[in-house]
Amino acid sequence: MTSRASTPPGLPLSPDAGDDPYLERVRDHVRALPESGIVEVMNYGRDRPGMIPLWAGEGDVPTPPFICEAAATALHAGETFYTWQRGLPELRIAIARYMARTYGMAENPDRYFVTGSGMQAIHIALAMAVGAGDEVIIPSPSWPNAAAAAQKAGARPVYVPFAYGKDGFSLDHERLAAAVTERTRAIFLNTPANPTGFVATREDLEAVLALARRHGLWIIADEIYGRFYYGQPGGAAARAPSFHDVMDEGDHILFVQTFSKNWAMTGWRVGWIEADPRLGQVIENLIQYSTSGVAAFMQRGAVAALDQGEAFVAQQIARARKGRDLVADALIATGKVDLVKPPGAFYLFFGIAGRTDVRSLGLTLVDEANVGLAPGTAFGPGGEGFMRLCFARGDAQLAEASRRLVAWLEGTATA
Amino acid sequence: MTSRASTPPGLPLSPDAGDDPYLERVRDHVRALPESGIVEVMNYGRDRPGMIPLWAGEGDVPTPPFICEAAATALHAGETFYTWQRGLPELRIAIARYMARTYGMAENPDRYFVTGSGMQAIHIALAMAVGAGDEVIIPSPSWPNAAAAAQKAGARPVYVPFAYGKDGFSLDHERLAAAVTERTRAIFLNTPANPTGFVATREDLEAVLALARRHGLWIIADEIYGRFYYGQPGGAAARAPSFHDVMDEGDHILFVQTFSKNWAMTGWRVGWIEADPRLGQVIENLIQYSTSGVAAFMQRGAVAALDQGEAFVAQQIARARKGRDLVADALIATGKVDLVKPPGAFYLFFGIAGRTDVRSLGLTLVDEANVGLAPGTAFGPGGEGFMRLCFARGDAQLAEASRRLVAWLEGTATA
Repeated sequence: MTSRASTPPGLPLSPDAGDDPYLERVRDHVRALPESGIVEVMNYGRDRPGMIPLWAGEGDVPTPPFICEAAATALHAGETFYTWQRGLPELRIAIARYMARTYGMAENPDRYFVTGSGMQAIHIALAMAVGAGDEVIIPSPSWPNAAAAAQKAGARPVYVPFAYGKDGFSLDHERLAAAVTERTRAIFLNTPANPTGFVATREDLEAVLALARRHGLWIIADEIYGRFYYGQPGGAAARAPSFHDVMDEGDHILFVQTFSKNWAMTGWRVGWIEADPRLGQVIENLIQYSTSGVAAFMQRGAVAALDQGEAFVAQQIARARKGRDLVADALIATGKVDLVKPPGAFYLFFGIAGRTDVRSLGLTLVDEANVGLAPGTAFGPGGEGFMRLCFARGDAQLAEASRRLVAWLEGTATA
Repeated sequence: MTSRASTPPGLPLSPDAGDDPYLERVRDHVRALPESGIVEVMNYGRDRPGMIPLWAGEGDVPTPPFICEAAATALHAGETFYTWQRGLPELRIAIARYMARTYGMAENPDRYFVTGSGMQAIHIALAMAVGAGDEVIIPSPSWPNAAAAAQKAGARPVYVPFAYGKDGFSLDHERLAAAVTERTRAIFLNTPANPTGFVATREDLEAVLALARRHGLWIIADEIYGRFYYGQPGGAAARAPSFHDVMDEGDHILFVQTFSKNWAMTGWRVGWIEADPRLGQVIENLIQYSTSGVAAFMQRGAVAALDQGEAFVAQQIARARKGRDLVADALIATGKVDLVKPPGAFYLFFGIAGRTDVRSLGLTLVDEANVGLAPGTAFGPGGEGFMRLCFARGDAQLAEASRRLVAWLEGTATA
């Protein structure tokens, strides 16, 4: 059961007044923050009977019991007091172990700082890196929250479109380099990427790092889908190329991470920042003055996830790979979609012949196919003409969603 | 048990490099954020055997079982997915009911937005109200996190000292008015106040509101200790005067709230903002782009707190009142402290004759009395010469702490 199942009728509550003069006292850059374009279609379709919701970046599996039990045990044991602003030492050690076995890092707990979500990790990374008047380079289309968090910090996102061709999305290094100005302070790179499925090669990472070094920029590395990588045979050790493979000590890279995807903990809001330990006090202060830490009992769940969760993660990845093939093969077979199977993350990002207004297409698909997809326009420049479909779900549901989408495509896609 | 009991030796981990050139790329206003002055003494004394820790703003009672059980039940039931950015509708309704019975408000769930801590509520309120170059007026001494969160937003806290006399701390309305400049955007008022125990009268609130109206300022009202009020006979209905008593619809007041104190949920990090519903979309965006919501299962615990917690809250307040009298009477009887019994919150804020360097006094009291107090300097201008003692604890521990402090005072206070 999700919280949505028990929503009282008539809620969310009354609509907002958009241009009310009451809002004039809100700071401009905050008032200008965009509403999430994913939420719009979710709110439109949320309560439809039989709806298959493939719009959000989350799977359909609740958090596994061994994680819930670790948290509940700590909660009942009274771990309900203020705790370490940088995170429980035990959790920082568990993260260090996890990163050592997954990325071959030296095991150094000083590098890891527990945050109240991957989103908060991004928020804190951006707070360190940028302020009013600065620019952040973001390959686009991209998950919109990074750009919005930069705007919230007073900075301006500078979008550099991915190249797009028969092999899917790729980084355009010339355009990236050309986007650097004297106001640029950071490059935000998400790989494997939401929504495109783009995965940076080692050479891509070396080029971005060289660019950042040349201009004295921060890199904010969002590798949260690093385990969801289909570019090589699967297995527990498989993972996408990472800045960890190419960086040196002394590079200015801030890694943002989350428990949401690997361990089916989207609703928990727990993540971490990985950074040079010299940033420790700054990060601690930013945590202190934004949320003052993460519940200790939730952190006990996170320790269980890291220490006992590898089999679960492997299942999740195998399931996503299967889901990707199931839906992508069915859609491609219609000949009516522009779709390249993505090498990473858990989204298909594709165009439908003759349909360019994807914002209304999202609502149409709710009405006519009872399947929820997110419009590409929710992901910024370059997203026009695309729809995002999350395939991190079970076979039966994905087969039914494919059947509905194929039927809809064959009935109307050329209309 | 708290998490502190199980800290591995040698942690928190390595010290930070203060002026390392690596930090030069961190934005100045973020690098300049102060380390919490409370944390310093806590880290100094945290692991002393027998230490009585009265430095933090939290009691010694873990969250009551009925709240923990509501959360654990939801967790095991799979409420682990993304949820409403404004908070579960059920929780917003429960808050509206609580506010209606406590403050006589109309029951309007649209006014309430669930946040990941009272700290996050402050952070979001300040993000709406102030930006780079703005000023926020804060009566001082005060809980340092509000000022630090203003600095994080790029604004400057402008401290206006409380007046201090034989009746304790009071607002100096002339100095408040004189502090307004054309850069002022907000007044942050905490009442009942941490650390001073100051409680604004209805007349104080009317005067502050008039000032804010006159200059078009936001009021950020931190009334989280509103129930911890000793200015009238106790009872479930007792609470301090509130801006709710004097405001009109259309006033620009943002209330920040938390579950931490009333319901012994400091470690949970759940609070709320109360604001005009016209701010709903802006607040939703700020939540979306900072932490993306609060775990639904934790919110179920918060619903239980509001709906079933009144008896517990009444006990907490009665206990704090008793604790206040126990410690204050003992200290005052020595004749060696400058202490006025506070009418609200749960702190004594007092001076010790002949001791002006309170930062080192905090460490000395750890060493010589094995009692942990927070130095007044942690609370900004006006805090020099004072120590803060939290009395939200049980009789036995407070009696022992009083005994130790009295012995120390009588042995050394005139030294």
